[in-house]
Amino acid sequence: MKSSLEYIHGYHQRENERLQDQAGTLVHLLHSDTGYPPGSTVLEAGCGVGAQTVTLARRSPAARFTSIDVSAESVAEARRRTEEAGLTNVRFQQADIFALPFEPESFDHVFVCFVLEHLRVPVEALRILNRLLRPGGSMTVIEGDHGSTYFHPDSSAAHRAIECQVDLQKRAGGNALIGRQVYPLMVEAGLDAVRVSPRMVYVDSSKPLLADGFTRKTFTAMIEGVREAAIEAGLSDAAAFDAGIRDLYRTAGTDGVFCYTFFKGVGEKGTGGPLAMTPPCHRRGDVAHRARADDPRPTSSALPQQGSS
Amino acid sequence: MKSSLEYIHGYHQRENERLQDQAGTLVHLLHSDTGYPPGSTVLEAGCGVGAQTVTLARRSPAARFTSIDVSAESVAEARRRTEEAGLTNVRFQQADIFALPFEPESFDHVFVCFVLEHLRVPVEALRILNRLLRPGGSMTVIEGDHGSTYFHPDSSAAHRAIECQVDLQKRAGGNALIGRQVYPLMVEAGLDAVRVSPRMVYVDSSKPLLADGFTRKTFTAMIEGVREAAIEAGLSDAAAFDAGIRDLYRTAGTDGVFCYTFFKGVGEKGTGGPLAMTPPCHRRGDVAHRARADDPRPTSSALPQQGSS
Repeated sequence: MKSSLEYIHGYHQRENERLQDQAGTLVHLLHSDTGYPPGSTVLEAGCGVGAQTVTLARRSPAARFTSIDVSAESVAEARRRTEEAGLTNVRFQQADIFALPFEPESFDHVFVCFVLEHLRVPVEALRILNRLLRPGGSMTVIEGDHGSTYFHPDSSAAHRAIECQVDLQKRAGGNALIGRQVYPLMVEAGLDAVRVSPRMVYVDSSKPLLADGFTRKTFTAMIEGVREAAIEAGLSDAAAFDAGIRDLYRTAGTDGVFCYTFFKGVGEKGTGGPLAMTPPCHRRGDVAHRARADDPRPTSSALPQQGSS
Repeated sequence: MKSSLEYIHGYHQRENERLQDQAGTLVHLLHSDTGYPPGSTVLEAGCGVGAQTVTLARRSPAARFTSIDVSAESVAEARRRTEEAGLTNVRFQQADIFALPFEPESFDHVFVCFVLEHLRVPVEALRILNRLLRPGGSMTVIEGDHGSTYFHPDSSAAHRAIECQVDLQKRAGGNALIGRQVYPLMVEAGLDAVRVSPRMVYVDSSKPLLADGFTRKTFTAMIEGVREAAIEAGLSDAAAFDAGIRDLYRTAGTDGVFCYTFFKGVGEKGTGGPLAMTPPCHRRGDVAHRARADDPRPTSSALPQQGSS
């Protein structure tokens, strides 16, 4: 939830609180399987106000984190929060992903969360970050996907309100539907052994804390946050937008259901062979693009192919 | 994938093969956590051609299954398949869910898979099946949800082709978006301690067998199967439909991604108190409808409520 380009959610206090709520509710779902060894160095690219930084640094207390964000204001807030949490293993720096002040192969691991959705050329950001990794290092990417949103009772007004957010993010150069692309983006950026797992948030009324923490205070609050921008851009009128928001809140009610999915990808430092810069459509075979021309090792992805149609 | 009403997929050989493929690919995801104790009696309501029956009966060899379907032809095929598999713990019967020849409280467990999607009044079917359960018995419900479908590359033509299937199923009295409603339907039907878990099928090109078995041969083949019906009903022209199908197959390609989610609910035999027939919207509180007026026990769903908005 930060960017090196336009940031459509804005830097307001309410947004700040929303990010805190979201981080709290989703910590286990998104981060429980991320931990870094003692002494390893980790670049968190796009730390925003530190919503993930505190979790990361706490879960790997003997790893050394470098957390950067393009916004000096966000970096200051993130620093305040990690200090408040008593963490001493994070150093902060204001920096743009596309102009990073680090040497190639200077980190053991890279962590990127809710960042690619805001970038015009996300694959280029991943390529840049991949170059900063030491051979054998890992990259972790987490993104949401607003197209994964569905609910009961269904509502076309609610879908249109969500579409306003998607359209605004697109106009700002981002992509709110990027979660489903984490795998192809990481592969195209040259990462090896990429594995993506979806993290679905499923909420029904047996989970009132999640209905409140996620459906109401995270997702619907985020969509509600673009109300003025959507109306100003002519994407919706006030009545239609408000009806959509009402219907979204309704899905957190007694018989309501709400679904949203995040995608988490983990890959290894690529070898940077000549095929790494080739678009996937120019490569042969279903998975053959992951066997580099200059890499004689068989890859784990060389599974038998079933008859393709 | 069977019905006591119109069955839009048809009873063709290809459809039969599709169901076999689907059952094979999805067995672990959908059924690995379903097992019945020795000696217990299980009603499989709507067994179709037995795609799930073989799995169920094999996984619980000492349980006794009664599998019914409204189609005598399907029942015959299901019987043939269980016999071929050497299973002796299943008896079959042609019967309609809405006119079942069984006494109240005559089964320990009920299993319903891909059936509610075809019914005009699914909650009534669940009420009927609930009455057949002994107190303390369990009901398991599994349904897909076509609204959970999204993919890369995204394609409005593909979404419109899927929408044809959804519309046709709606015209036939069914609901292809019912997966998300499993929780509220089970609660409304009077089941207790309902827990629903989503089972998401996520396919990228690191999983070529799943791309072939699910994206191509299960989902896209199913949508392709309504081509003539969709054109005849004026929901699409041939060129538009075929473009959508091409784009769906495309998502199983090198850089493609495909997502679909099933929902599995498990509940316990309800006490049948006076609130069991009350629509959820007339009940008080977020989860209070699961505490019956005639049931003094605290329910496990009596979680603290956060401030609702």
